[in-house]
Amino acid sequence: MVKNFSIEAQDGEARACHFELPGMHAPHSVETPLFMPVGTRAAVKGLLGTELAEIGSQIVLGNTYHLYLRPGHERIARLGGLHKFSAYPGPMLTDSGGFQVFSLAALRSIDDHGVCFRSHLDGSRHFMTPELSMEIQKSLGADIVMAFDECPPYPATRDQVAQAMKRTKSWARRGQAVALSAHQCRFGIIQGGLYEDLRQEALGQIMEEGPWDGMALGGLSIGESPELMQQMTHFMAPQMPSLKPRYLMGVGRPEDLIAGVVAGIDMFDCVMPTRNARNGQVFTHFGKMNIKNARFADQDEPLDSKCHCFTCATYSRAYLRHLFICGEPNAGRLLTFHNLSFYISLMKTLRAAILRGELTECVKSFYRNWNSDVRVS
Amino acid sequence: MVKNFSIEAQDGEARACHFELPGMHAPHSVETPLFMPVGTRAAVKGLLGTELAEIGSQIVLGNTYHLYLRPGHERIARLGGLHKFSAYPGPMLTDSGGFQVFSLAALRSIDDHGVCFRSHLDGSRHFMTPELSMEIQKSLGADIVMAFDECPPYPATRDQVAQAMKRTKSWARRGQAVALSAHQCRFGIIQGGLYEDLRQEALGQIMEEGPWDGMALGGLSIGESPELMQQMTHFMAPQMPSLKPRYLMGVGRPEDLIAGVVAGIDMFDCVMPTRNARNGQVFTHFGKMNIKNARFADQDEPLDSKCHCFTCATYSRAYLRHLFICGEPNAGRLLTFHNLSFYISLMKTLRAAILRGELTECVKSFYRNWNSDVRVS
Repeated sequence: MVKNFSIEAQDGEARACHFELPGMHAPHSVETPLFMPVGTRAAVKGLLGTELAEIGSQIVLGNTYHLYLRPGHERIARLGGLHKFSAYPGPMLTDSGGFQVFSLAALRSIDDHGVCFRSHLDGSRHFMTPELSMEIQKSLGADIVMAFDECPPYPATRDQVAQAMKRTKSWARRGQAVALSAHQCRFGIIQGGLYEDLRQEALGQIMEEGPWDGMALGGLSIGESPELMQQMTHFMAPQMPSLKPRYLMGVGRPEDLIAGVVAGIDMFDCVMPTRNARNGQVFTHFGKMNIKNARFADQDEPLDSKCHCFTCATYSRAYLRHLFICGEPNAGRLLTFHNLSFYISLMKTLRAAILRGELTECVKSFYRNWNSDVRVS
Repeated sequence: MVKNFSIEAQDGEARACHFELPGMHAPHSVETPLFMPVGTRAAVKGLLGTELAEIGSQIVLGNTYHLYLRPGHERIARLGGLHKFSAYPGPMLTDSGGFQVFSLAALRSIDDHGVCFRSHLDGSRHFMTPELSMEIQKSLGADIVMAFDECPPYPATRDQVAQAMKRTKSWARRGQAVALSAHQCRFGIIQGGLYEDLRQEALGQIMEEGPWDGMALGGLSIGESPELMQQMTHFMAPQMPSLKPRYLMGVGRPEDLIAGVVAGIDMFDCVMPTRNARNGQVFTHFGKMNIKNARFADQDEPLDSKCHCFTCATYSRAYLRHLFICGEPNAGRLLTFHNLSFYISLMKTLRAAILRGELTECVKSFYRNWNSDVRVS
């Protein structure tokens, strides 16, 4: 159960919150707004737990679908659970696998009972149900367990969305019937596509299936424009329970995080900072840049002159470009370290501004630099 | 110039030595026998400078051929030299590029003047000479500069080997005509294939072209059996100048390093611990193992129960296997950390044994465990 949830300060709809996750051995203190690095397969690509701590990461994501298929949740349980297996003592949130079953697996067929799918790894057949998803997350020992939901595609008709909502509600109830371990918290997920009335209805439906320790907006950032996504977030966030963490799943760009915070969201996750790092894309206070670009070949300056991370304190753009162009493994690792530092420090900056009651000025200040690219000659 | 070279202890032909490299800013103390991690493109694949220091690495290799082609030695010089470029303050030794020109580049033609070759990257034409190799290494700012030599292939006829020796002598002389920076040391390279008399002759020829700060055996471990390689090392090492560092280039397996130390070699380098790590091969006190093997999937124990490195202190075989099977980038990095730790700690163990006068017992003790694989159930 999430404990001692408090809203330390509010600025418009934006909140700076604090809560505790019980933890298996000791409680973890969490401060929001926060960004959660994605460690799909029990690892954040290129970073170790010590480095995640160094950049101020508070919660790391793992993924039910991926860990169920490989190495198997029963194996992880035998080896002491996800924290011990990955030697990561901090809080972990596991995605329920719903989204991956729909986006990655082949030959799926969905009925009210669950989802039949073939593994994207070896084609083997599996049947995922809300009960199994809870059992997996329970045996992994996640600190935050997500409900198993059906995420309709984008675009989807009202009927498709309504059908997915109905299942998501029923699956939420069935998931609730599986008791978790004492230290585990459970979040509900609101679907409803881009239909405001359906989203509101979904919120009510999911609330009925509580109790929940937190509430998530799912099914966004799946192909719709950022404007539509931000609009729906802006519409829904203030309606979500105020005294619980609000989580916007799978979002997004720095601009989307800022919009989400302004709308009243507390928690975010996205593969963007890590995946893009591996493709050479760097987030800086002055906008995005791709380290492959030839103009960086002779630049003896850090990626981001306003960043204090290890990568920026140690290496030049010229060297990082060289590593990237050569395919040296340190490239992805160092860019990942920077990008995650950037995301996490952005959240800290927003939190500090909310605490000071200066969020509007803080956002304006961000956009004054963003895309200015003044440091790039 | 290598300074304050001293043989602290000798055990048979084996030596524990100490010397200083002047360094561009401050002198570096070096203790032998030592193993030098290979950082071909100004980076050890998967490890940062901080981690190399943590595992006790004393000297890191860079490569003239690779850095000349990409990012270019002139660019590195403009950016402050190899140390500043790669943010690595410790000593660096640069290979002369001779070996890579012969083994990697296409369409090469060799004459007494130098080697015409096409880049393996883009097919562009280049002409490498001993003078250019020295200029490159000078502008990189390497602490130890290697002579530009011709490495005959294996197998090679006496005539081929003699021809390469003749060029290697002439190229050594021409290289000596290029003045290096004050802090740079210069090593000669002995060729001669697997012909003992030619090796002896080559040693004499190269000595004539001195002064050298150290002497290297080149052209070994290029396809001949380990037995032949060890035999030639055993024959040559004691004849090499006693009061200078002796370097066996590109060697090798742990067994080869031990044989080299016993023969009187002080310095080694090889891609084996780093490259093999990326292929899943792990060196342990109990022999080699491949982490891909299914038997490790449930083993909640370190790679090597006798190893004290970060990887072994933190992660299980089961987790490391999982990372490797999934293609997670942390896999190569963590295995590389372990393998290099193993190599470097093996050298430290041998050094300590030499200082105690117990090398024979130390080697016996190593082989009692090696390939016993008793920890693998």
